[in-house]
Amino acid sequence: MTASATRAVGDPTGLHRVLDEGTVLPQAAQRLDTRRELWPDEVRIRVERLNLDAASFRQLERTHTDDGGTVDRDALRAEVLAIVAARGKMQNPETGSGGMLIGTVEEVGPESTLGLAVGDRVATLVSLTLTPLVIEDGLARWDGRGEQVPTDGYAVLFGRSIAAVLPDDLAHDLALAVLDVCGAPALTHRLVTQYEQPVVAVVGGAGKSGSLSIAAAARAGAQRVIGVVPQAAEAALLEAAGIADVVAVADARDPVALRDCVNAAGGPADITVVCVDVPGCEGGAILATAPGGTVLFFSMATSFSAAALGAEGLAADVTMLVGNGYVPGHAAYALDLLRDTGGVRGLFERRL
Amino acid sequence: MTASATRAVGDPTGLHRVLDEGTVLPQAAQRLDTRRELWPDEVRIRVERLNLDAASFRQLERTHTDDGGTVDRDALRAEVLAIVAARGKMQNPETGSGGMLIGTVEEVGPESTLGLAVGDRVATLVSLTLTPLVIEDGLARWDGRGEQVPTDGYAVLFGRSIAAVLPDDLAHDLALAVLDVCGAPALTHRLVTQYEQPVVAVVGGAGKSGSLSIAAAARAGAQRVIGVVPQAAEAALLEAAGIADVVAVADARDPVALRDCVNAAGGPADITVVCVDVPGCEGGAILATAPGGTVLFFSMATSFSAAALGAEGLAADVTMLVGNGYVPGHAAYALDLLRDTGGVRGLFERRL
Repeated sequence: MTASATRAVGDPTGLHRVLDEGTVLPQAAQRLDTRRELWPDEVRIRVERLNLDAASFRQLERTHTDDGGTVDRDALRAEVLAIVAARGKMQNPETGSGGMLIGTVEEVGPESTLGLAVGDRVATLVSLTLTPLVIEDGLARWDGRGEQVPTDGYAVLFGRSIAAVLPDDLAHDLALAVLDVCGAPALTHRLVTQYEQPVVAVVGGAGKSGSLSIAAAARAGAQRVIGVVPQAAEAALLEAAGIADVVAVADARDPVALRDCVNAAGGPADITVVCVDVPGCEGGAILATAPGGTVLFFSMATSFSAAALGAEGLAADVTMLVGNGYVPGHAAYALDLLRDTGGVRGLFERRL
Repeated sequence: MTASATRAVGDPTGLHRVLDEGTVLPQAAQRLDTRRELWPDEVRIRVERLNLDAASFRQLERTHTDDGGTVDRDALRAEVLAIVAARGKMQNPETGSGGMLIGTVEEVGPESTLGLAVGDRVATLVSLTLTPLVIEDGLARWDGRGEQVPTDGYAVLFGRSIAAVLPDDLAHDLALAVLDVCGAPALTHRLVTQYEQPVVAVVGGAGKSGSLSIAAAARAGAQRVIGVVPQAAEAALLEAAGIADVVAVADARDPVALRDCVNAAGGPADITVVCVDVPGCEGGAILATAPGGTVLFFSMATSFSAAALGAEGLAADVTMLVGNGYVPGHAAYALDLLRDTGGVRGLFERRL
C-alpha cells in the first residue's frame, strides 16, 4: 500500500494521516497530518485539556531545570508547543510517551462507529502519541507546573479508537485521572483470576494506577495484596486508605530491598504489578516474584532489554507482561472500582 | 544491605561484584569487579570464544561504517575491548545487550551448586551483560567481521547462574548457536500448550530463534505454523527446510503488510512470535494477532513503549510477553529439537 493510496481511502488505524515515508502506524510516525477535514470514519474533538504522561512531564521538567534546581517553565511550555507543531501530536521524543485529553465532540464522520454524538464530553483513551492534535491558544493558560494542561485546540480520533463519555456523577478531573490509568486495574483483575488466590504485590501502590490495581486485585480474589511504597509518608497514606492487606516500604530500584520487603510482607508474590514511573525496577520486581509467577509492567520507564536479560540472568522462571493499556470494558471497570472503594477515591482526590 | 556488606558475603545474584554506588544487579551495573579470586559459590571459566548478540554487533558495525560503506574493523575491535575494560563485562551501552561465551571450567568454588567440574567445556546461558569478563589477548585473533569472537581470558559465574555442558554429539559451533537462543523455543512451546490448536506466526522464521520456534510450535500442537521472512531468498530456504506449514514474505516493519500477509496465510495468528532483530515490528505483530491472542517478543530491538502504546492505540486486546531467555530445561529442549528436526539443523549449519 503506498502513502498516496492510504490517503485516498481512510484506514481505521489512521494510516492515512501518517506523513512519514514508508508505512508506519500513527504511534510510530514522526509526523501526522492534522487537517481539520475528517475522513468518513473519524471524529473531531474540541480539546479542553491535555493530561501529559507522568514520565514525559518529569523528563521535560528535568530538561529545563538549571543547576540551582529552578525550572524554566516558559521553556518547558515552548518545548511542548514545538513538539506538537513539529509532529502533529504530543509525543515526547525522549520517553516516547504522550498522555490523553478531554474535550467535546465537535464533528462525527458519517461512518464512525465509536458511538459518539456532537456535544458529548469525552476523554480519549488512546494515547496522545497517535492522536492528531492542533493547539490554537499557544498554551497561554498553562503555567507549566503540572501534567494537566488547559488549552484550546482540536484533535482527531480514527475509526479504530477509544473514547469514553465522561460520567455525570464524578468530577471531570477525577474521572480523567481514573481513565488515564484504567488499563492497569482491568489487566490486573484478569491476571488474578488466572491464578488460584494469588499473593499480589503492587509496586507504587499509593499512586493512581497502583491504588486501582490494589483494589482490582482484592476484588478479583487475591489471597493477600501487598502495597509497596518508597517512603513512610506514602505508607501512612496507603495505610489510611485501607485497601491493601499489608503496606511495605522499599526503594523499588534496589532489587534486594524490594525482594526482602515483599518476602517479609508475606511474599514472594505470585503476581507483581509495577506501577512506578522510575527506571531500574525490573530486577527487583523479578526477584520479588515466585517461580511460575507473573510480573506485569505498567511503567513506561520499563526497559525491555533490562527485563528480558534480567530474568535470564537471575535464572528466574517468571512470565513478564507488557502492560497493555487496552482491555475491553476497562473504563467502566475502573470508574466502578473508584465509586466502590472509598480508599481509592480518597487517594485520587488528594492529588487533584 | 550496604555495598560493603554484600562484598564480605557473596550473594547468589552476584551483587558482591557490583562496583556501582547503591544496590543494582550485575546486569544493570555500570561496572563489575573482575578479580580472579572466587567467592565460595562462584565458578571461573577460561574463555575461548564470545558470541556477541546480533543486535549489538550490528550496532557496532554501523557505528564504525564510513559514508562509503567501509567498516573500520580495527576501530570496532578496539571498541569491544574498551567496553570490556571499562565495564568489566561485555554490554553494549547502546543496545544494552551482550551475548554469551564458551570456555572450559577452570575453578569451582566449594559452595557452587551449578554441577560443573574443572575441565568441563561449557556455554554460559546467562547474558554477557552480567558476566564478569577479562580479555587477556587483546582480541588479536578476531578480525572484527562477525559475532563469533575467538579470544583468551576468563569469566566468572555466580551462585544463581546457568551454564550448559556442551554435548558430545554436536559440533561446538552448532551447539553454541542453538544454546544462544534456546529460551525462544521453550517459551513458544509452553505458550502453544496454553491454547487449543492455535495458529502460530513466527516473524523472522528462517533465523536461529525463528526456526527453532517454528519447530517448537509444531511439536507443541499448533494447528498451523506460518513462517514470515523478509524476502524471496529466505522464503526459498525456509520452504526447503520444510518446517513451516506456510511461508509468507513481508517486511515486518510495515504493519499493514505484515497483517495482510499473515491473514492471507491462514491468520490472524493466535500467537505471534517476533524473532527479527530490527526495530519497529511491534505494530505489525499486534495487528497480525487475533483478539485474545498473544505476542511473544524475542527481539532485543523491541521497544517497551512502542508495544504498550501500540496495542492501546489499536484497541487491541492482545497479551504481550517479554521474551524471557530462561525457561527450566530450555537448553536440553532446544538441542533435542535440533537433533530431531533436519530442516532446522540445515538452516543452522548454513550459517556456520
